[in-house]
Amino acid sequence: MSVAKEFEAANANYVASFTKGDLQLPPQRKVAVVACMDARLDPARALGLEEGDAHVIRNAGGRVSDALRSVIISQQLLGTREIVIVHHTNCGMLTFTEDVIRDKIRTDLHQNADHIAFLSFRDLEQSVRDDIQILKDSPLVLDVPITGYVYEVETGKIVQVGENQ
Amino acid sequence: MSVAKEFEAANANYVASFTKGDLQLPPQRKVAVVACMDARLDPARALGLEEGDAHVIRNAGGRVSDALRSVIISQQLLGTREIVIVHHTNCGMLTFTEDVIRDKIRTDLHQNADHIAFLSFRDLEQSVRDDIQILKDSPLVLDVPITGYVYEVETGKIVQVGENQ
Repeated sequence: MSVAKEFEAANANYVASFTKGDLQLPPQRKVAVVACMDARLDPARALGLEEGDAHVIRNAGGRVSDALRSVIISQQLLGTREIVIVHHTNCGMLTFTEDVIRDKIRTDLHQNADHIAFLSFRDLEQSVRDDIQILKDSPLVLDVPITGYVYEVETGKIVQVGENQ
Repeated sequence: MSVAKEFEAANANYVASFTKGDLQLPPQRKVAVVACMDARLDPARALGLEEGDAHVIRNAGGRVSDALRSVIISQQLLGTREIVIVHHTNCGMLTFTEDVIRDKIRTDLHQNADHIAFLSFRDLEQSVRDDIQILKDSPLVLDVPITGYVYEVETGKIVQVGENQ
């Protein structure tokens, strides 16, 4: 059975007890979370989010340079006024370099992916600081509070990186 | 109080009952979900995901052209072999055009964002079909099962769009 079919079965249970049908489009808590796609991180459970609370933008590494389109839409059209970044320990992005994945794609897929910045990193805390700075430096992003965290996959805990910006 | 401080308080409760500290890096169910960042959609609750199960990639609209870097990393380095796309009713991406947001940025921020494709759409089901096709056509994406859904924010239900690919 495909995982999609399993999702449909699980969704039937969700629908049976669903009570959130009248939520508004703009996020109620006016915050956008930018987090890694990692399977072990559930931003809603780890941060106490209910349906309707927050935009949750996720990609490999939780990198903001790959989230700018979404952040701009979140702020300009849907009124969010705070950003929270969540990277995490044992991230896959720490395990490879741009050359490693480009070489793998060349070997396995016979394709050239040299035009893609895969945004891997070597220093986890620095990756959070870098991403805060990218948002601060972007003229397309509003001057709003930005807080960066490292999520510990071993403990479930979020640990702030640097001071509040 | 910033929302970030509220997240820290909620996270302390999560940590207190955390039992998932030994999960592996590769997603256990070998699936990547590409979903909209919308606040009303909680992919984990709506699809029955536990920590460790699946990559969850999210952006404005759940557009795959803005998720390709993450999908490639998910498949090439972390072994996922199925993709599920989730767009949803009442999406913000249905409410504007590229010109509207570019004009707003020009007026409010005095910046030019004409180089950004904001990936808005007019037809919800077609946006899902388009995104399935983009993945199917990409030589950088493996030939894996892809299933597209519309999530109904009014009912919590996922409704498949088209046939399984």
